[in-house]
Amino acid sequence: MVVKLFYDKIFLILHLRILMKAYKKLVEKYERIHHLSHMQSIVYWDQQSMMPQGANDARAKAMAEFGVILHEASVDKEIALLLDDAMGEDLSTVQKASLHEMRRNYSNNTILPSALVKAQSLAHSKCNHVWSEQRKNNNWKAFEPSLKEVIKLAKEEASIRSEINGLSAYDSLLDLYEPGMKSETLDGIFAEVKIWLPELIQNILEKQKSQTYIEPQGIFEIQAQKELGIKVMNHLGFDFNKGRIDISSHPFCGGVPEDVRLTTRYDEKDFVQSLMGTIHETGHACYEQGLPQDLLGLPVSQARSMGIHESQSLFFEMQMGRSSEFLKSIHPFITESFGKKKELELDNLIKIYSKVKPSLIRVDADEVTYASHVILRYEIERALMEGQIETSDIPDMWNDKMQEALGLNTKGNYKDGCMQDVHWSEGIIGYFPSYTLGAMYAAQQFNTVKKVYPNINESIENGDLSQVKSWLKENIWSNASIYSTDELMKKVTGEALNPKYFKAHLENRYLL
Amino acid sequence: MVVKLFYDKIFLILHLRILMKAYKKLVEKYERIHHLSHMQSIVYWDQQSMMPQGANDARAKAMAEFGVILHEASVDKEIALLLDDAMGEDLSTVQKASLHEMRRNYSNNTILPSALVKAQSLAHSKCNHVWSEQRKNNNWKAFEPSLKEVIKLAKEEASIRSEINGLSAYDSLLDLYEPGMKSETLDGIFAEVKIWLPELIQNILEKQKSQTYIEPQGIFEIQAQKELGIKVMNHLGFDFNKGRIDISSHPFCGGVPEDVRLTTRYDEKDFVQSLMGTIHETGHACYEQGLPQDLLGLPVSQARSMGIHESQSLFFEMQMGRSSEFLKSIHPFITESFGKKKELELDNLIKIYSKVKPSLIRVDADEVTYASHVILRYEIERALMEGQIETSDIPDMWNDKMQEALGLNTKGNYKDGCMQDVHWSEGIIGYFPSYTLGAMYAAQQFNTVKKVYPNINESIENGDLSQVKSWLKENIWSNASIYSTDELMKKVTGEALNPKYFKAHLENRYLL
Repeated sequence: MVVKLFYDKIFLILHLRILMKAYKKLVEKYERIHHLSHMQSIVYWDQQSMMPQGANDARAKAMAEFGVILHEASVDKEIALLLDDAMGEDLSTVQKASLHEMRRNYSNNTILPSALVKAQSLAHSKCNHVWSEQRKNNNWKAFEPSLKEVIKLAKEEASIRSEINGLSAYDSLLDLYEPGMKSETLDGIFAEVKIWLPELIQNILEKQKSQTYIEPQGIFEIQAQKELGIKVMNHLGFDFNKGRIDISSHPFCGGVPEDVRLTTRYDEKDFVQSLMGTIHETGHACYEQGLPQDLLGLPVSQARSMGIHESQSLFFEMQMGRSSEFLKSIHPFITESFGKKKELELDNLIKIYSKVKPSLIRVDADEVTYASHVILRYEIERALMEGQIETSDIPDMWNDKMQEALGLNTKGNYKDGCMQDVHWSEGIIGYFPSYTLGAMYAAQQFNTVKKVYPNINESIENGDLSQVKSWLKENIWSNASIYSTDELMKKVTGEALNPKYFKAHLENRYLL
Repeated sequence: MVVKLFYDKIFLILHLRILMKAYKKLVEKYERIHHLSHMQSIVYWDQQSMMPQGANDARAKAMAEFGVILHEASVDKEIALLLDDAMGEDLSTVQKASLHEMRRNYSNNTILPSALVKAQSLAHSKCNHVWSEQRKNNNWKAFEPSLKEVIKLAKEEASIRSEINGLSAYDSLLDLYEPGMKSETLDGIFAEVKIWLPELIQNILEKQKSQTYIEPQGIFEIQAQKELGIKVMNHLGFDFNKGRIDISSHPFCGGVPEDVRLTTRYDEKDFVQSLMGTIHETGHACYEQGLPQDLLGLPVSQARSMGIHESQSLFFEMQMGRSSEFLKSIHPFITESFGKKKELELDNLIKIYSKVKPSLIRVDADEVTYASHVILRYEIERALMEGQIETSDIPDMWNDKMQEALGLNTKGNYKDGCMQDVHWSEGIIGYFPSYTLGAMYAAQQFNTVKKVYPNINESIENGDLSQVKSWLKENIWSNASIYSTDELMKKVTGEALNPKYFKAHLENRYLL
């Protein structure tokens, strides 16, 4: 018996080894890609936050050259063979999901020829540089040729992708950021929003007319703002042993899950926006830091989608951060940093953080008017990709839509109009819808958290974020890309995306 | 005639194109390697100055993986064929020198197997990390195993190299940093130094006994020190559009010529060392920034040797920086930063900056006792490579030699003894002699500058560094690696390395 068992065990081990061979090799390959991406992420962060201007050309060349290497690693033909072989292997549920994400990743990466990838890397680096120079000068003319090149290359990409995956040109890019989402669905959601949002905005503006508050005035030392930001990040549970925060002209969350690099920007005259920006990026960062450690490096360990990523930053910023309960919990930090002043009293801060005002800049917009900014960009980028307009049409179209949505004029004001975002300069087309999808996912998630922990608002007010964080860690962060977005939302909230929670959240916060 | 000429021209162009084909391809290959090295340099800088501790493992893996790619690019077999083909091409003098440096570079790189390169990259990253943790704790025992692994791998490297290039184990590593230099020559130079240095030190100590000065006391705000450093760097001509300065535990000059990354460290109690450290690293940095732009990326455009590199930092720090003339020129910056105090008076600063005192830490040593630190390390690392001692023998040998050279005890004091430098943790063996060679080259160069510009000290005193900088740029920086070290020194100073100028400099500054 003993001998028999022994043989059985050996057979089992050998059998498993054979069965797992291809999958194991895939894991090695994707871990290598993860190590290489680490280099790229850190150098990108450096480019945005540390690099002196004069190094831009050399850096663009370095990033382009490295982009080719990373691209080649991710289109390695052996991966295709291993993906097929692994299909026949005896895999666990998570390994099956992992294999599925590898396949999606591989298919997305192999569609583009190396020459296009290299041209894009170069064009994005250059356009980003021109953007950050010319935005200051409000110089659309100097910027447009670089953007035109980026858009041309994006259309080439969309055309190649849509030919293979059967999606429309725009949807084939949207799918990169929001897998499974289609513009048909977006059209439905956004059409509905366009119906109720204008009236909601009007009602809120009407209600807030009678509210008075004091604008924070004067100098808030950058150093004090930095220290306040760090205190709040610690409160939110950001792990400074595996990340840091610095300054860049366009705040982002970069790096790798093992070393998350946040950036923010400060304004001496106003700490309010910067503080909330930091809370927002910390939401992204905690998602990254909370991804499953045992799967790190594999596509399945990555954030589910950009919409789900945004849902975490908006959960932190909007669902939680701007609530009176959370503001009460961090209020002592604020007065420690800037002293006790009338304009820093809690009631005043709550009013500031729930002020609704149609404005030109998306990243500074309140959560109510924000959707209008997103819908405008969605409509423009979709028209660009579908060839209905040219880059030269952007400023006028921007102005028209801004007038229509929020009654604001951007004629000749490129800086605060179509040159305000870095996305298009970076060739990021199809990303914008994720912001509003994120707001909707976040509202639906918070609604669930409230059901699970009926006393959640009290806990937040008392500075205890353990319930929120354990729910997010268990339900969102640690699930990474194991489920599709639809499956994930159903699994953790009981239903697929339902925009009614977002609408209800806005009505509750701003009209009750 | 016209037609004839026309044909001749076409023939000439075609002929040149054929002749230059291999060389041109080599240029492309080395420019690509340069772009990839750019990535590595920036990520290394980040690791030393920005990275949070918890990211160390992930970073070590990323650097190791990337190290393999860079290694593979530099050992590309096609380069060997092109190097041979290019030998028959019609090249200019500079192109011939360029080809020679490519060959040297290629031969150095191809000797090592990929597996060893990867093991080294991993071992160096880990040892560096352990070093920076355990040095604080003065914990040699916790550090030694990591160092032992690094030394084992360095010996493997030395053994492979010496088998191929016919040099001794140690010389085969020395040659990587100081091409053409042999330990036989070093033995001669250092033996001579060991004869005259002890007496010189005694005489200086005797002379300085009667000199009194006031030690700068108290808090020198880090921010004020940073700003002072930047002012002085600007005065020295550092181009902040192509570089920056940050903090790391072991100051270094990194990055790429297009984006030079200096690091320094600050001590609130004493700005004196940090300021001079910044001047030192700025010497390295200006060399990098002054390398020939039209050859960038090619091995011939790189600094001639580590000794010549060090000669530039020591030219800035020792020949110029600590002179009474230079100190007078930057004195206003110092009082602007810290106010007018008795201890900051010019005479007092001159005394501080020419104070000679045997001490434990090499980077804080004065230029007179510095050579003793270098000779000690040279003797230990050479004994390690030649198998005469083991890593476990280092602490005792260090103590014995420190007692002998400077009368100082390091028993049990690893932190300020054999654990003070990062070099060995990084697998950098054979580098230390460059420091003292650099001091000697610098003295010889400054002696030439004085002959060319008899009024040089007056110019420096008046804050006019144009003569110094134009001489260095024309003679050292722009020549990069076009000539051998020997040829370069002969060409620009009229003779090969002659240590007498170093001795004369020390006697002039400290005994006259």
